[in-house]
Amino acid sequence: MRTIDWVDGAVEIIDQTVLPGELRVLRLHTVGELIAAIQSLAVRGAPALGVAGAFGVALAARVHADDPGALDNAVRRIETARPTAVNLARGAQRAAALLPLGPDAVLAGACAIRDEEIAASESMASRGADLVVELCGDRPRLLTHCNTGGLCTVTVGTALGVVGELHRRGGLAGVIASETRPLLQGARLTSWELSRWGVEHRVAVDSAGPFLMARGEVDAVILGADRICADGDVINKIGTYSHALGARRAGIPFIVVAPESTVDLATPTGAHVEIEDRGAAEVTAWSDAVNPAFDVTPHDLVTAIVTDRRVIRIDRGEKP
Amino acid sequence: MRTIDWVDGAVEIIDQTVLPGELRVLRLHTVGELIAAIQSLAVRGAPALGVAGAFGVALAARVHADDPGALDNAVRRIETARPTAVNLARGAQRAAALLPLGPDAVLAGACAIRDEEIAASESMASRGADLVVELCGDRPRLLTHCNTGGLCTVTVGTALGVVGELHRRGGLAGVIASETRPLLQGARLTSWELSRWGVEHRVAVDSAGPFLMARGEVDAVILGADRICADGDVINKIGTYSHALGARRAGIPFIVVAPESTVDLATPTGAHVEIEDRGAAEVTAWSDAVNPAFDVTPHDLVTAIVTDRRVIRIDRGEKP
Repeated sequence: MRTIDWVDGAVEIIDQTVLPGELRVLRLHTVGELIAAIQSLAVRGAPALGVAGAFGVALAARVHADDPGALDNAVRRIETARPTAVNLARGAQRAAALLPLGPDAVLAGACAIRDEEIAASESMASRGADLVVELCGDRPRLLTHCNTGGLCTVTVGTALGVVGELHRRGGLAGVIASETRPLLQGARLTSWELSRWGVEHRVAVDSAGPFLMARGEVDAVILGADRICADGDVINKIGTYSHALGARRAGIPFIVVAPESTVDLATPTGAHVEIEDRGAAEVTAWSDAVNPAFDVTPHDLVTAIVTDRRVIRIDRGEKP
Repeated sequence: MRTIDWVDGAVEIIDQTVLPGELRVLRLHTVGELIAAIQSLAVRGAPALGVAGAFGVALAARVHADDPGALDNAVRRIETARPTAVNLARGAQRAAALLPLGPDAVLAGACAIRDEEIAASESMASRGADLVVELCGDRPRLLTHCNTGGLCTVTVGTALGVVGELHRRGGLAGVIASETRPLLQGARLTSWELSRWGVEHRVAVDSAGPFLMARGEVDAVILGADRICADGDVINKIGTYSHALGARRAGIPFIVVAPESTVDLATPTGAHVEIEDRGAAEVTAWSDAVNPAFDVTPHDLVTAIVTDRRVIRIDRGEKP
């Protein structure tokens, strides 16, 4: 099952807002529908957003084939539908570069991006599992945050793909899934994927992560990224930085798994990234709120970044 | 309005499980009803639990005046209704020491504990506000966690009492209330109290705290404690330790406000405290969970502890 795909002239996605209660597939026929799905987080996760951006441009190319102004406007709206993950704008731009060749070329380009993400997931799973064993021995207990499974890519996942690979190898002694407030991607989506894979796990409130590390219940933190800056700073779901602080104090590895499509050498540091605030309504019905959807983990707290092509040992001074 | 009091032969509490939607007063006539209220968190917060423990023994003394075995058993059940805050057992024991003098003496002793907590709150508010100004200047922006207002004591509160005092002095530039998963004491109770006091504030998911500190939006963290160990380790609501890590990294003060009744010199360090796990159902309906209700903040992360009698500068090597 693919999280996002092109099927019979439309974009099909698994609607992540209704999981785990319901497994519903949405068919998106217009750019407006696609943008609404991105902004409501029906489709989410940096790699999946890259594919969504590309498919969005493929949709626009078909609808606005005779109206360059409208087409240009549609591409711009897709690129900026969410600001933080680099993949969305990058996927849209890669597909848009093929617009002069016509709608079919754009669609072929978008499908290529989808296929690259599928291949990247498989590569990360293997490379990441090797690194975890190297750093933690062959029965690690892992803590992960947000959702980095097949639902954030197309299949398999990033950090959760590594967890799944360790499970298949028979070398996993425990998984704690951080619930990931406010929208509970951990409690809803990661838990659902782990259950489907037959991986025993426990959910914890986000703020329990550092304490569980201090209590000796976690051998490594492993999670994804929405953008990796040139200096190794990691932009990821709010709560990532807390877990990094906890891992440092507990003296355990902090491992980031993300495809090369998430590495953004044009962004020097985390301070240069726009952090999306998603408004009070996601957090509370009773008062005002501040709701940054992402945070910045400074590179000095990162042990390693695993991509589909390499392991970057940030702790040894390597740079993306 | 008092969070807990003795009224016409019964214990009256504000039911904290239904706030902010409803302000409901429960009358508790039996030890069983009182214990159920403690365990459901209808009454909560270390100082309020101390008063509840004492009033519980006063109830038991009236019901079981002629049955020493039943009385002894009731006292034991009250003391152990929740394990982490020292105040509950201590309040019950102080009241129980008066049992030989009869039910009226026990009730008088329980009312004295209530009155001590009221006086302690007022003292902490003034002392804590002075310390915050000394450390942060006269327009501080504060982050607090869980609920430490009048709802956790009898009136006024501990850390939130300090926030209220700074507001009354006209010297408060902002408050962030950490929502406090899983039961949302911050989003529900702290926000409700701050609104009643007319204090503008924003709620944030717990894991956003350290990032908001890193972004320069917080001048100090101020929160309460369920038990303060002899070495200065602080036991408090889960999430406290994360905020302490964030404060240390951001270079801002981490201030704990709690009455002397929370200081437990008989407990050498945080490692000696039983941390209550409240079960999966509070966290998620979809999987297993690990749900420590409290965590341990090592004393090296604490700047100062403010009690009703003193300011303990842990950062200068002072001990409780």
